Amino acid sequence: MSAETSWTELETRMRELAELSRVVTLLDWDTQTTMPPAGSLGRARVTATIRVLRHRRLVEPRLGELLADLESSDIDPQRAAMVRVAGRSHRRAARLPDDLVRRISVASTLGNSAWREARAAHDFAQFQPHLEEIVRLKREQADLLGHDGERYDALLEAYEPGMRTERLVPLFEGLRSELRTLLDAIAGAPAQPSPLNGVVYPEAPQIRLANRILADIGFDLDAGRLDQSAHPFSSMVGLRDVRVTTRLYPENPFPSVFSTIHEAGHGMYDQGFDPAFEDLPLSEAPSLGAHESQSRLWENIVGRSRPFWERYTPVARELLGSDLGGMDADAVYRYVNRVSPSLIRVDADEATYNLHILIRFELELALLREELEVADLPGAWNDAYERHLGVRPPHDGDGVMQDTHWSDGSFGYFPTYTLGNLYSAMLWNRLAADVPGVDDAIAAGRFAPILDWLREHVHRPGHLLECEDLMRHVTGAGLSHGPLIDYLWAKLGPLYGISRP
Amino acid sequence: MSAETSWTELETRMRELAELSRVVTLLDWDTQTTMPPAGSLGRARVTATIRVLRHRRLVEPRLGELLADLESSDIDPQRAAMVRVAGRSHRRAARLPDDLVRRISVASTLGNSAWREARAAHDFAQFQPHLEEIVRLKREQADLLGHDGERYDALLEAYEPGMRTERLVPLFEGLRSELRTLLDAIAGAPAQPSPLNGVVYPEAPQIRLANRILADIGFDLDAGRLDQSAHPFSSMVGLRDVRVTTRLYPENPFPSVFSTIHEAGHGMYDQGFDPAFEDLPLSEAPSLGAHESQSRLWENIVGRSRPFWERYTPVARELLGSDLGGMDADAVYRYVNRVSPSLIRVDADEATYNLHILIRFELELALLREELEVADLPGAWNDAYERHLGVRPPHDGDGVMQDTHWSDGSFGYFPTYTLGNLYSAMLWNRLAADVPGVDDAIAAGRFAPILDWLREHVHRPGHLLECEDLMRHVTGAGLSHGPLIDYLWAKLGPLYGISRP
Repeated sequence: MSAETSWTELETRMRELAELSRVVTLLDWDTQTTMPPAGSLGRARVTATIRVLRHRRLVEPRLGELLADLESSDIDPQRAAMVRVAGRSHRRAARLPDDLVRRISVASTLGNSAWREARAAHDFAQFQPHLEEIVRLKREQADLLGHDGERYDALLEAYEPGMRTERLVPLFEGLRSELRTLLDAIAGAPAQPSPLNGVVYPEAPQIRLANRILADIGFDLDAGRLDQSAHPFSSMVGLRDVRVTTRLYPENPFPSVFSTIHEAGHGMYDQGFDPAFEDLPLSEAPSLGAHESQSRLWENIVGRSRPFWERYTPVARELLGSDLGGMDADAVYRYVNRVSPSLIRVDADEATYNLHILIRFELELALLREELEVADLPGAWNDAYERHLGVRPPHDGDGVMQDTHWSDGSFGYFPTYTLGNLYSAMLWNRLAADVPGVDDAIAAGRFAPILDWLREHVHRPGHLLECEDLMRHVTGAGLSHGPLIDYLWAKLGPLYGISRP
Repeated sequence: MSAETSWTELETRMRELAELSRVVTLLDWDTQTTMPPAGSLGRARVTATIRVLRHRRLVEPRLGELLADLESSDIDPQRAAMVRVAGRSHRRAARLPDDLVRRISVASTLGNSAWREARAAHDFAQFQPHLEEIVRLKREQADLLGHDGERYDALLEAYEPGMRTERLVPLFEGLRSELRTLLDAIAGAPAQPSPLNGVVYPEAPQIRLANRILADIGFDLDAGRLDQSAHPFSSMVGLRDVRVTTRLYPENPFPSVFSTIHEAGHGMYDQGFDPAFEDLPLSEAPSLGAHESQSRLWENIVGRSRPFWERYTPVARELLGSDLGGMDADAVYRYVNRVSPSLIRVDADEATYNLHILIRFELELALLREELEVADLPGAWNDAYERHLGVRPPHDGDGVMQDTHWSDGSFGYFPTYTLGNLYSAMLWNRLAADVPGVDDAIAAGRFAPILDWLREHVHRPGHLLECEDLMRHVTGAGLSHGPLIDYLWAKLGPLYGISRP
């Protein structure tokens, strides 16, 4: 069989696998935004059925034959990359029986529903049996996938291919030490005030502001849309159909703005792959860390910048019909960059955010290593928060149950947030050097120079290279915490009147 | 193999088939309510992929073996009914190649998008090539399914099992003749006035009124929800997840009320199957005519009744914050029962509604018989409207392109609306005899006696009997236009001051 014939058959199969993934994504999107409460059980079954059907197609020996045929053929770099990506998925999946795929899927969907209720009730006991089942299944899955003694690696691989625990541990320790120095300096400086005063910002104007910013920064609203959900997220539910969500707080319009920009950073990545490879494995980020580099770059480096608020303070005043507690652009800039150790990750500032992630990484690593059991998790969580952030949750709803991830089986996912932060600072250094006058462009509401640069260097290549190779190729540097720490000092030093020791 | 073993395997397969249908239903729901415009092509492909996967599972020889095994076994009536229903689906599907299933699915999804745009532009030429392709495919499908010389029967069978064109033609001719007599009498009476005067009714209060009525009549909002769409519909997108939609008109709050009640009639049927057979072929209506009997019974016989508006005129005034153009309950009752030949089926009154259906039936029959080609359809449509209703569409948007059905390949569907009307009147005769004081219950806002009766006699049995057998079993009578015509004279006679000749 010629390589061309094999390729044609492989392409058909890869498209079908992509389509089945899209269906699962739509089911999840609908579950989180729209589905009525009684639909949970049926949705869990349907989602599992589609996942199992996809799994069966993915592990078919015929797919392995086609991949082997093409791995030994002379093909162009794009096709070679797709064969590499598809081959890895095929081989990983082949280690898992259908039945485990179904059990994990059902436990995740039901676990997520149980978590939602238990969190609202601040009652970990309701959630505990679900989480115990999920942890059991994830340990089993990791052992079947295979590892060199570190179960966590087998799960991490799904989100950050090639990354290993033994590299994360020292990277994160170095980061934590640098953040500690920064936070100690800030703790000695006067706190920034919060001028918000209980004024209520209705939904409709907040949504108008969010849609205005989406359109301005370059999110294609013809090929996407904005909705509300309890936890903001972005998902590509179909070809040219990328959905982002936001969460509105009645008394504070800023969290919705940052959620929107964050999710748009993800969404514009998904809208920016090379159309020549639609529904093929090149049309995806090489890792979740790469994906998160886009959301954090837009949310923090662009969205929390001074020129951004020079532009958008008047826009927000007009669209919200409010004087924002009397804040001018400078005051908004100071307000949205306040640093203060807190309980909730998604509301955390840039300086403390990664400490939240490091806590989760340590705890899930301990769970996978069987050094910690689920029953002891809330206590371990509270102790870690007290130790690393100096705050102790008043209840498990604002503690161990604040995040959705473990409830749906996403173990090994959290480190990608911190990797995304590190990559975002590395990318911005390069972008700012390549794009002169980027601050002026932001202040003028012109985001095309930023988006164009990201399109060319990060979005269009998709999964042509693995994440670290892509980042090294684009930035000329290897993964480190240096650029993020430099960026934080450069921004927060002047804001708090502190100098780097 | 024992019958019990065969049954267990069959049950698993039937549940999977039901789940795949649910996924297609959710994809369609999302397409019509939520999907951004650029998503059409990807959605067409994904929907086709799931339909083809389902088709492949449905035609597997193993399914045929299990069915054959059970058909020759001694099983209870419920299982026998499910084997009958599943067997018919299996045998029909087995006559169609995968490729035709995919082509019909893609042509339908894209045809529906093209129709939406062409309709808004009043430009049939844009839609014509899509419709030509769909008609070609449906003729091919009908011939592969097989028929006794009447292609239409092969398509009708999908919606109304056992019904035949040769029975519909005389049934519909008799109905038309009776309606003509009634309409001639009404034409000689003074017209009812329309007191609506251009006041705008905002969306939020209209939606609140719709949700209030949904809750009152018994639609379970914990296992369902209300949204908006260009064309109101009801669909069961998952187990215990039934979605209804409505369409709002800014200057008239009544169409949304009737759309809501109509779709709730469908939705309560889907919420009312016996839970013991969830996701199995007993949890479905025996035909679309049976389904429509529920929506029309609630919309017209309950929702356009005098006691209903005695109850809901004050509720509507309060929730809409309007005096409804000064109408009291009697005026609303007269207003919502005005009879006037018009262009648009979905806005038609009870007396002219079926004439709209009969026009469509004749035209689609002619298309399938190749007595009419798509290019000549708009002219034939306009002539038929002039002949039967005395009105001629000013453009094709309000003419041949007003309905979605042909654009998504639903040929053979329209007669089920009229069958539903006939069955609704037959059922109401029985219900009113069985449930004394039903008018008083409606006037008191107590709908449980009606819903309970329908649950027991129509909803819970599901597909245990075929439609005509079910209706005969419940009403003691065979299908005829008599009860509907009697009902219309009984209502419209006094309203228009006319007597039956």
